[in-house]
Amino acid sequence: MSPGFFTRHLAIVGLGLMGGSLALALRNCADTITGVDPDTETRTFALENGIVNAAMDNLQQGVAEADTVILCAPVRAITAMVERRIGSYLRSNTLLLDIGSTKHDICEAMGKLPVGIMAMGGHPMTGKEVSGVQASDAGLYKGRPFVLCPTRRTTPAARLRALALVEALGAVPFEMEAERHDKLVAAISHLPYILSATLVATVAQQGQTDPAVWELAAGGFRDMSRLAGQDVQMMGDILSTNTQAVATLLALFRVQLAMLEAMLVSRDEQKVAEFLKPARKARLNWIQQYENGAKK
Amino acid sequence: MSPGFFTRHLAIVGLGLMGGSLALALRNCADTITGVDPDTETRTFALENGIVNAAMDNLQQGVAEADTVILCAPVRAITAMVERRIGSYLRSNTLLLDIGSTKHDICEAMGKLPVGIMAMGGHPMTGKEVSGVQASDAGLYKGRPFVLCPTRRTTPAARLRALALVEALGAVPFEMEAERHDKLVAAISHLPYILSATLVATVAQQGQTDPAVWELAAGGFRDMSRLAGQDVQMMGDILSTNTQAVATLLALFRVQLAMLEAMLVSRDEQKVAEFLKPARKARLNWIQQYENGAKK
Repeated sequence: MSPGFFTRHLAIVGLGLMGGSLALALRNCADTITGVDPDTETRTFALENGIVNAAMDNLQQGVAEADTVILCAPVRAITAMVERRIGSYLRSNTLLLDIGSTKHDICEAMGKLPVGIMAMGGHPMTGKEVSGVQASDAGLYKGRPFVLCPTRRTTPAARLRALALVEALGAVPFEMEAERHDKLVAAISHLPYILSATLVATVAQQGQTDPAVWELAAGGFRDMSRLAGQDVQMMGDILSTNTQAVATLLALFRVQLAMLEAMLVSRDEQKVAEFLKPARKARLNWIQQYENGAKK
Repeated sequence: MSPGFFTRHLAIVGLGLMGGSLALALRNCADTITGVDPDTETRTFALENGIVNAAMDNLQQGVAEADTVILCAPVRAITAMVERRIGSYLRSNTLLLDIGSTKHDICEAMGKLPVGIMAMGGHPMTGKEVSGVQASDAGLYKGRPFVLCPTRRTTPAARLRALALVEALGAVPFEMEAERHDKLVAAISHLPYILSATLVATVAQQGQTDPAVWELAAGGFRDMSRLAGQDVQMMGDILSTNTQAVATLLALFRVQLAMLEAMLVSRDEQKVAEFLKPARKARLNWIQQYENGAKK
């Protein structure tokens, strides 16, 4: 429990892994937590396991009494809610936060909400390989970065409340403009996903000629193909709302790949090593910091 | 212990993770196990922990009495040993096996050994994130594929002994020509490594403009960057001895990537989903089989 954040009535819209984990992590920071989810089984599980105090499928009803609302849904579902409906459902001075994976469209839509609603874009850099409310974990956000992107409806008070909420989660706040966020995640999330899916597509093509490729694949392929197994609808949403930044990163990647390929094909082993060594060093430096962060 | 494989004197040349694990796994299949390694500390550790019965740094001395020799070194170190020295050190009817990551050059060199030496190329599809004899693990090969590539020195007797050795490890033998092996590993090992290193190089480039990229990177980047941390000398060796197959795979990959990019940039979401869905399905099918195999 953080002394810095308290809300009378918290509404979490979308009780998946992320939403359920938010409810667990903020349990001591709210008098009441209401979950909104269209799925009956999800609502029953969340209620029976004390993840929320109330659960309903009606958005208007679910957020009407809330003074803090967090939208936990795929990017375009969040954008649609913000654009079309939620503005008229919320009381003045409600803090509206979201956890969508790209921020430009959502923050734009938030900026058009009625004056009086305090809206901040959010993106926690965490997750699990499993999904669903059953996997909810109060520690999911702990020690992990939580990006906060201001909108035209982010008052100074809204900012302080959002920061306090992030600290209550044990997460590390990073405040930045939506555009900068979207460029950064294009590099560290969207490009990796594209490479993973394209690698699997390439191996599958090889597999048509020689199916033994699947039988020999081992740990390296396992790691490099994991992201390809992510939900296609969710990832399609993400890529479609960040096309320009993704295209820019793909262009940068292509240049690097062409350089390495030229060195390999011309059998310039010195140059190949000069390419691979800094990449190795950068990876080793990063993983050390990342694992130290995870231990905190 | 397998009833099918027994050797009086086994020599393992190169006591790293792979060699040390072979010694542990074949402990009950040999009267004596000799380890050959240039590193004093490695030899001391292997002796003190009962991984080998004898340890020396002299190759000739180490293999002179052996009736089975397994070369566990980087690809070009193996090729150099086979080409330049080991032929004159080995007794007739010795089974010579290796575990190098590319097979063409090694199998070619093995084919030129004196008649009477029984030589088979090998490549176990297993490993660990840690290296060194200290990480040796008797179960490392269990349930994992072990490719065997025939050479001009693979007699029917050599083949049967190699198969029995692989079964004694609890591994699953896959017999194939060196060329086919090299094409398959280009797809599942070498292309993934290249993509990982190039991804890190691209993120590092982004990091020059905005260092926050390193702070936000999370689990997806962790998996996709792991291979980039591998030993540069070892990977350079592998890529240099498989240039043609790697270049072919890069060409296939580029076509797939360009297709996906065109769909993304033209915002053809239907087509994007049609690309991503089979990749997701292929990955989910594969990981299920892979994990079932690992459980055996």
